[in-house]
Amino acid sequence: MKKMLTMLALVIAAPLALQSNAVLAADTEKTKKVVYHVNKADMNTIKAGLRNVTNHINSPSGPETQIEIAVHGGGINMLTEARNDPQLQAAIDNVKANGVEIKVCANTLRGKNLDVKEDLYDTQESDIVPSGVAHVADRQMEGWAYIHP
Amino acid sequence: MKKMLTMLALVIAAPLALQSNAVLAADTEKTKKVVYHVNKADMNTIKAGLRNVTNHINSPSGPETQIEIAVHGGGINMLTEARNDPQLQAAIDNVKANGVEIKVCANTLRGKNLDVKEDLYDTQESDIVPSGVAHVADRQMEGWAYIHP
Amino acid sequence: MKKMLTMLALVIAAPLALQSNAVLAADTEKTKKVVYHVNKADMNTIKAGLRNVTNHINSPSGPETQIEIAVHGGGINMLTEARNDPQLQAAIDNVKANGVEIKVCANTLRGKNLDVKEDLYDTQESDIVPSGVAHVADRQMEGWAYIHP
Repeated sequence: MKKMLTMLALVIAAPLALQSNAVLAADTEKTKKVVYHVNKADMNTIKAGLRNVTNHINSPSGPETQIEIAVHGGGINMLTEARNDPQLQAAIDNVKANGVEIKVCANTLRGKNLDVKEDLYDTQESDIVPSGVAHVADRQMEGWAYIHP
Repeated sequence: MKKMLTMLALVIAAPLALQSNAVLAADTEKTKKVVYHVNKADMNTIKAGLRNVTNHINSPSGPETQIEIAVHGGGINMLTEARNDPQLQAAIDNVKANGVEIKVCANTLRGKNLDVKEDLYDTQESDIVPSGVAHVADRQMEGWAYIHP
Repeated sequence: MKKMLTMLALVIAAPLALQSNAVLAADTEKTKKVVYHVNKADMNTIKAGLRNVTNHINSPSGPETQIEIAVHGGGINMLTEARNDPQLQAAIDNVKANGVEIKVCANTLRGKNLDVKEDLYDTQESDIVPSGVAHVADRQMEGWAYIHP
């Protein structure tokens, strides 16, 4: 019974802890912004990119840096492969839990005939941008840094 | 005879239509600028880069974006291979018709012993820059965004 | 004896010549800044990157451009392989003699269990940055251009 209560407490506490982190993150002003450009089909490059983002979050600059991942072309494999790869899911979940947003190119979805809900891991309509490359360039026009993993 | 007149009309109209597009393009102020960095010999990467540029032109940001492609190192394959590849020619012609300029690295031409007129598709002396990488960095110093396809 | 004196003169003169170059470099104001992002394990990409930097130095923009190379992930091969590759050493020595600084990611050293003194060519503790990707983004926030060779 005691064990069950402890588990119950954890189940209740977990979302609260996440919320508390979110509030803390919002409190820290994000004065630095960076867009990661993920366009290669190669899964090693994609996974290295996610490790880069994780290291960026955990770096001294992490708390003041807003991070976006712009996915297009072959890079869409990040989200299609994640549907059947729990490790990849965990890596994506982790960066998102730390405030990273993933933007997905509408041209790529149309070109590869992919459905947001059916084919991509944890992606919403609100994550779609008309053009991945235009988004990456526009972000830089707004003062964001650029990293090509 | 009627058919010939129609063809004649088309031959006359085609350059006028292009000119009209050019005037329209000039009328839209290009407040965004981006340089595409093409330096990989792999033809899939090169062709993907040209598709990226085309998608960029056709994106909502396209009309207000000035685009340059800086070619150096292995990326010069874009212009050497195009001499014998009509599809590649069409892709290059298309982005150029939409105002994209292609800049070519003099170091690369010297290093690979290539002649502007003999070895490169549709390239003029005025397209040559002393150093491709310096050009890419200088453009960013002038406020241009950077994309590595 | 005469030969020994000549050698002695060379030994004394060499550092003076280097110092003289350093003074000249310092005299030219570096109004342009660029960080090269070296993160690929492939040695051809790494060597092409060093050739790019050399061409950048020798370009018309070279004298006014401050250059850094940020090494992380697979790109660390540049410094591990150089320990047994005299040509690679010469390329690194040459860009450094021209004022280029090489910054190395602490995450990469930890992840690959590499020692600064034992495993990397000509690297000091002062060359280490906490995160290679954060360094690359932070440099752009400070107004530096970015090149991914």
